[in-house]
Amino acid sequence: MKTDAYRVKEGKKVKLAEWKTDEDGGLEQHDAKVLTKELQEQLAEWQERLYAERKQALLIVLQARDAGGKDGVVKHVVGSFNPNGLTIAPFKVPTEEELAHDFLWRIHAQVPGKGMIGVFNRSHYEDVLVTRVYDMIDDKTAKARLRHIRHFEELLADSGTRILKFYLHISRDEQKRRLQDRLDEPGKHWKFNPGDLKDREHWTQFTAAYQDALGTSTADAPWYVIPADHKWYRDLLISQILLDTLKDMDPKYPKTSFDPAEIRIE
Amino acid sequence: MKTDAYRVKEGKKVKLAEWKTDEDGGLEQHDAKVLTKELQEQLAEWQERLYAERKQALLIVLQARDAGGKDGVVKHVVGSFNPNGLTIAPFKVPTEEELAHDFLWRIHAQVPGKGMIGVFNRSHYEDVLVTRVYDMIDDKTAKARLRHIRHFEELLADSGTRILKFYLHISRDEQKRRLQDRLDEPGKHWKFNPGDLKDREHWTQFTAAYQDALGTSTADAPWYVIPADHKWYRDLLISQILLDTLKDMDPKYPKTSFDPAEIRIE
Repeated sequence: MKTDAYRVKEGKKVKLAEWKTDEDGGLEQHDAKVLTKELQEQLAEWQERLYAERKQALLIVLQARDAGGKDGVVKHVVGSFNPNGLTIAPFKVPTEEELAHDFLWRIHAQVPGKGMIGVFNRSHYEDVLVTRVYDMIDDKTAKARLRHIRHFEELLADSGTRILKFYLHISRDEQKRRLQDRLDEPGKHWKFNPGDLKDREHWTQFTAAYQDALGTSTADAPWYVIPADHKWYRDLLISQILLDTLKDMDPKYPKTSFDPAEIRIE
Repeated sequence: MKTDAYRVKEGKKVKLAEWKTDEDGGLEQHDAKVLTKELQEQLAEWQERLYAERKQALLIVLQARDAGGKDGVVKHVVGSFNPNGLTIAPFKVPTEEELAHDFLWRIHAQVPGKGMIGVFNRSHYEDVLVTRVYDMIDDKTAKARLRHIRHFEELLADSGTRILKFYLHISRDEQKRRLQDRLDEPGKHWKFNPGDLKDREHWTQFTAAYQDALGTSTADAPWYVIPADHKWYRDLLISQILLDTLKDMDPKYPKTSFDPAEIRIE
């Protein structure tokens, strides 16, 4: 499956209205799930190589509007990885101590070490999204932050960390369906946050802020705009991109420092 | 399935020689795997309740000799949990900064928050195991540490954290088979650590140290001696104990602060 069409090209100004939310690749749900399962079996093998090699890391950044599917990707895609080689960092509203530092301080502390796959459920990008929409920072600060983000990601890339950034792209109607679903099903009430409705009122401002954030797409830290109205297509697409990326990183089992034939176990 | 026989009773002095390593519950591997899969589907539901409730936490401590199966349990049992509600803390040889603090300092920083399941792959128990075998601490220090550990676990229990401690019990022969396997299969060379052979020479001293550590079994933080020669029986048994424990903790979906029928999504 080709995924290049979903990658934001470096230097290209994104208009989200031009990106489809309901793409399904011409697939049925059942077939997509079978394909995803197959990809994830291959992913497990490549993850082991990455872990054994201990020379590179993979950082997965998940961003989306409320109900966009970040938790779903963690459960259904990231959940197929071996937890031994995985770190998950969910970023919430910053604490007082975190706010007393630069905005990348708490982020930097959570990047994956060599051999690991790290997942950011929300990320440093919140600092140029929600903060902008609610006028907590001005445009000049936002612009400076976007520059700091590029430099920070460059530092990680130079140290052997490949970065994949996914924007899970849902339509306004699909968000409504998902939020309504949380109200209608008692077992999902705990997922409903009345504050999400306030963010929904600022749909257009969030779109503008996301479009600027997507401008930080580079070869080492590309953004992908993932059509996410169909959860199963979203999962398939991300699994494919992860697999292509790991293959491209090409981690290798390390050479041993000993001769296995020489060792006797008493 | 009854698991009580594998729990170390409070105040009981353990003699590991009396605990079987090759128990299989009278099951065949295939049937055990089917049963484990069924248990794990139930575990996923209970994990969601724990996560939604956000009032209690579950801490799983894994200890074993080299090749005892800690990583296997993380992959095959813990791997069935939703990563959104999971933290994994692998404890390695302490760093200089960690050694500059009391031995529980780095441990405390990694305990799971409310709603989470936390896994310690090795733990504070290393500080009364490897350190003792290699005479890095004397018996008086070991005794004091065991007391500090009991107090520390009591603190966690009082704050709503249930603790399950698993000692994965393998025979000396089984360890030999597994280490030899790592030498024989090129794809497993990276798992072989020549230092494991030194620990193997100290088998009896490790047994003695483990027996003392198992003395910290309490109602809130019990130790289980898991027969672990058969990986599939080990996984089944641990899955069953996790499920029984989560059911006993009985987390509940929280009541909403809003009336779902009153909310209109524009």
